[in-house]
Amino acid sequence: MRIARFSIDGTVGFGVLEAAPSEGEEPVLDIIRGHPFAEFERSGRRVPLSKVRLLPPVLPSKVVAIGRNYTEHARELGNEVPDVPVTFFKPSTSVIGQGDDIVYPRISSDVHHEAELAVVIGRLCRDVPRERAREVILGYTCANDVTARDVQRREGQWARAKGFDTSCPLGPWIETDLDPSDLAIMCTVNGEQRQLGRTGEMVRSVEDLIVHITESMTLLPQDVILTGTPAGVGPLHVGDRVAVTIEGIGTLTNKVVKRD
Amino acid sequence: MRIARFSIDGTVGFGVLEAAPSEGEEPVLDIIRGHPFAEFERSGRRVPLSKVRLLPPVLPSKVVAIGRNYTEHARELGNEVPDVPVTFFKPSTSVIGQGDDIVYPRISSDVHHEAELAVVIGRLCRDVPRERAREVILGYTCANDVTARDVQRREGQWARAKGFDTSCPLGPWIETDLDPSDLAIMCTVNGEQRQLGRTGEMVRSVEDLIVHITESMTLLPQDVILTGTPAGVGPLHVGDRVAVTIEGIGTLTNKVVKRD
Repeated sequence: MRIARFSIDGTVGFGVLEAAPSEGEEPVLDIIRGHPFAEFERSGRRVPLSKVRLLPPVLPSKVVAIGRNYTEHARELGNEVPDVPVTFFKPSTSVIGQGDDIVYPRISSDVHHEAELAVVIGRLCRDVPRERAREVILGYTCANDVTARDVQRREGQWARAKGFDTSCPLGPWIETDLDPSDLAIMCTVNGEQRQLGRTGEMVRSVEDLIVHITESMTLLPQDVILTGTPAGVGPLHVGDRVAVTIEGIGTLTNKVVKRD
Repeated sequence: MRIARFSIDGTVGFGVLEAAPSEGEEPVLDIIRGHPFAEFERSGRRVPLSKVRLLPPVLPSKVVAIGRNYTEHARELGNEVPDVPVTFFKPSTSVIGQGDDIVYPRISSDVHHEAELAVVIGRLCRDVPRERAREVILGYTCANDVTARDVQRREGQWARAKGFDTSCPLGPWIETDLDPSDLAIMCTVNGEQRQLGRTGEMVRSVEDLIVHITESMTLLPQDVILTGTPAGVGPLHVGDRVAVTIEGIGTLTNKVVKRD
């Protein structure tokens, strides 16, 4: 099931994306009654996907992100894969959705794309045992861990480099029925392939990361885990269209714009 | 004005702390109608401070913290004062209030206290010019940037070392009428002085930090900035009572307990 968050005529809601009923017909959302992180049902009221504005599918209290979780990517930046996962936060103020603009920050002149599988947490959890890790997951979406590489290199901690406004595109929707263990993940810029990998190459699996994170902190419903990026990261420029595609989920597209 | 957040008989509210009317009488809270981050007034309905449970005075979407902002403290850990402030996040799930327990995390065997002046942001802001920095501040409170020093040394980024549950005591209340530029700041453990400094020793002032942070990210009402800790950090043990006192604000006390 694909759950989208959207606005239409000033109203915000969630809907379940239905497969197009027949060729040529466009996809529709079946509007949700209730809330996808609590109890809900499909209302049967439908709205065409093309008529809504997609919003970030989730409003995380925090995004917990993992660095250097693909060996080839760690090496391309001259790093080794660390003994314990590199763990950092992106704040709620960095989150944008499908089609929203990535605003090039004034503090940087070297902003990079990083395509990542995002795990959406469905329930409050702490000290999750590995064998129960899948139970705390509502679903998966695409993420771009947009990074000011020059700021990251200059400053010891990455809060400004990876936490600036618009640095966390998430979307286009949450896919709840998915095995995350070996999915193709790709990033294109202006249609040209830049990153290509498989989640099967991750040093630590989704389950391992949930154990690692919840060893020290509580995850709340709607919190998001970013699982690291495969090799091929590179610069974004004003005017670029960057797209993250993950097998079984879809494509998250954002344009890079200049800050007014 | 001192604004406290409290619960009594299952109800949560804010109140303004009144000076004790005469010697021997205990302090009372004048309950607020409205919300301190929006419009509010004092209701005239009073409750003795001793009858309420104090809660964290603020519910931040994010805590933005600054490392190595006191020269002597940077040196005691073998670090230099960096050219740009070290900036990191503590998540909302790490926040506790006056009298709440600091739960010793299983991932560490070397948890330290770090007494800090906390700045409480009163309004949404971005790109704040230095001369207007004071306008975005609602007030100040005491903070303890509790840190798993061993985890901090082991892991490149500090999310787990400084973001574990209960690692961000804030309180006891927000003082709105205060010049933060040169206040005594002290930390005691079981009544014994460990840290002593003055906010005037900060490498970057409160105003500088607001400029630095809002250069890259939006601060929301209730967000909190931790301004760094003076020299004298040291270990906490289960059973310890740690107290952070800041001149003009008050004292934030928490006990360290074992995780069940």
